[in-house]
Amino acid sequence: MAKDMKVAYLLDFYGDLLTEKQRNSIEYYYNDDLSLGEIGTNLGISRQGVRDNIKRAEAILFEMEDKLGLARKFSLIDQSLAAIKKNIDIIDTRNMRIYRSNDINESIKVILKELDKLDQLK
Amino acid sequence: MAKDMKVAYLLDFYGDLLTEKQRNSIEYYYNDDLSLGEIGTNLGISRQGVRDNIKRAEAILFEMEDKLGLARKFSLIDQSLAAIKKNIDIIDTRNMRIYRSNDINESIKVILKELDKLDQLK
Repeated sequence: MAKDMKVAYLLDFYGDLLTEKQRNSIEYYYNDDLSLGEIGTNLGISRQGVRDNIKRAEAILFEMEDKLGLARKFSLIDQSLAAIKKNIDIIDTRNMRIYRSNDINESIKVILKELDKLDQLK
Repeated sequence: MAKDMKVAYLLDFYGDLLTEKQRNSIEYYYNDDLSLGEIGTNLGISRQGVRDNIKRAEAILFEMEDKLGLARKFSLIDQSLAAIKKNIDIIDTRNMRIYRSNDINESIKVILKELDKLDQLK
């Protein structure tokens, strides 16, 4: 059974949609790197049961991403926020070194606070 | 059957998760304001069938929001982006009137372009 590391990323977005057994199986497998046998022992189910849970969970994660595209959207949001942060830092440096405007400094502070909030939403 | 206008908003996020009949029924009802009878005629199903589709669809939308919270997240993203935009405009005005820095102007342009991109992601 090949591991697709995109699964670990999708888990962050859609993990709450899985059943508890599916979620435990796939988290042990992808996040904790346990073997199917070890997971089976932990959950009190067969190796084949673990495999079925993981396969079903993977299918749900990919189907949800296909329909909602959240991982793709949040990756684009991340890129834009990084570009905004970089350019705010440029404005900040320029302002601090040359113009020393309090108004600009205040607005930069507000923007940095909002960027922090956005960072925590993920 | 009372209309909860939050449903129309949730439809934007989770509409793709509904079956075609559920989606048609709920869109006719919430977005086009048709009666159950009119929707039934359009879809070739009974008035009760339409009602069942809408009830089931509403339950799915609220369940998805409860688990994924996308509507809530994107509403917070909107608020932060509005605050960022407002403060970029303040910096822009200040720079244009007083400092006339090309570097700051260039960075503002990049940020506005990224804010536009983020606006289109919704």
